[in-house]
Amino acid sequence: MESITSVNNPQVKAAANLKNKKFRTETGTFVAEGLRAVREAIAYGRVESLFVTEDEAECLGDWLDKAASQGTRLYRVDGKVMTRLSDTKTPQGVLAVAAMPRTGLADLRPGPEDPEAPVVILDRIQDPGNLGTIIRTADAAGALAVLLLEGCVDAYSPKVVRATMGSLFHLPLVQHLAAEEVLSWCAREGYHTVATCLDGARDLYKTELPGRDAFILGNEANGVAPALQQAAEERIFIPMAGRAESMNVAMAAGVLLFEALRRRRYGRR
Amino acid sequence: MESITSVNNPQVKAAANLKNKKFRTETGTFVAEGLRAVREAIAYGRVESLFVTEDEAECLGDWLDKAASQGTRLYRVDGKVMTRLSDTKTPQGVLAVAAMPRTGLADLRPGPEDPEAPVVILDRIQDPGNLGTIIRTADAAGALAVLLLEGCVDAYSPKVVRATMGSLFHLPLVQHLAAEEVLSWCAREGYHTVATCLDGARDLYKTELPGRDAFILGNEANGVAPALQQAAEERIFIPMAGRAESMNVAMAAGVLLFEALRRRRYGRR
Repeated sequence: MESITSVNNPQVKAAANLKNKKFRTETGTFVAEGLRAVREAIAYGRVESLFVTEDEAECLGDWLDKAASQGTRLYRVDGKVMTRLSDTKTPQGVLAVAAMPRTGLADLRPGPEDPEAPVVILDRIQDPGNLGTIIRTADAAGALAVLLLEGCVDAYSPKVVRATMGSLFHLPLVQHLAAEEVLSWCAREGYHTVATCLDGARDLYKTELPGRDAFILGNEANGVAPALQQAAEERIFIPMAGRAESMNVAMAAGVLLFEALRRRRYGRR
Repeated sequence: MESITSVNNPQVKAAANLKNKKFRTETGTFVAEGLRAVREAIAYGRVESLFVTEDEAECLGDWLDKAASQGTRLYRVDGKVMTRLSDTKTPQGVLAVAAMPRTGLADLRPGPEDPEAPVVILDRIQDPGNLGTIIRTADAAGALAVLLLEGCVDAYSPKVVRATMGSLFHLPLVQHLAAEEVLSWCAREGYHTVATCLDGARDLYKTELPGRDAFILGNEANGVAPALQQAAEERIFIPMAGRAESMNVAMAAGVLLFEALRRRRYGRR
């Protein structure tokens, strides 16, 4: 394993540049930090280079061999270099540069074990923590994919990657989609579009979900764009009981996706 | 309205000190920032003093009169003073010093409109964003109260207050509780304790929830303490479909609380 001790090393500079969206787009790569995310990245065979401190190299153990056998370039770095690379105040000591998957709508195929799995469509989600949590939760609830319309925060920004807790490496994700493109894909593939809204919408728990639901969730302040609400086949709201005015959008996604999971697994109502 | 232009003004210093838990505990007060939270605080009559910039004073309008009629001290401040007071990089221009409610277990009474409403018991939750989101979601799902065992992050820290989006002012919250104290309260008041765990637990969707459920959720890394899991009447897990290893604790709370709401409102299964 090559050792790097200078923050001016070209490999270090190139990896540090990936905090910036421009460089991520140009190179088609992004950074995943921390043991858990790095292990997931290696498991999915996507790591181009890996930076690790002495201590963390021990924790990774066989994973380093596995990465090396996949052609990953391995670099041992000190704390100073890791701090330069990391997006966090307290770096976790291991960081991977991974290739973005090139998944498109045409690649999405429901598996035989859950042919009715839903998809999640996101309209102008701005908060990286929300996006990461939605991706993690969509994975946990067995969604087929997360589809991001134009205007969402970049799914490969360090904060999003961190909040997904590795799910970015399992769950298909397609970015920069036009609404029309997604709606015609849904129509063609038999996905039933369900927009979340408040006015003129039906109570989630009184609404039949036919399966293959495409849940549309929107911007933190403004919700789903009115035109997109209208274009959806169904408009629902999650009933609230208390005095809170609204729910966080990631929480709304979780409640919807687990309600859909419950109906798929345990019967329709 | 008194005008303050110095960051060294004693009122400003005292309010800025409330970023520190020690001063919050000594004074029994905390800070709420932003229009929404401040309006909620005024609505609930708890504001001791209010700091506002010229621009935001206009947005507050009648709310300032309402606050004044409750004996709130009003201060007009400039951007420099607001920056000193605020916990955020981009202050929202209005900030209230509010009294912590003195709610104890003995004060909790289910209302006639939802006598079966659950409570949430939290064991060593560390992340302020998680705690705030749990409080907001518990409010939205009609929980009776959130009960914090010793070892949780302080519910009145600025980050928690922000993440509750005003729910801290509606939803009863009791802090610094011993586990035994909460368990005997549950037994006495007829709350059915349900701990979230993985090993040896039952699937949420195959488990009867009798109502008056006391959902116990635990630390982000370690979950509910084993002794507390054992002490609970029921142990459940939320079934996952994908390859995610775990769910965020706030998301788990939301899924549980909305499933409980669904069963209370729409029938038992």
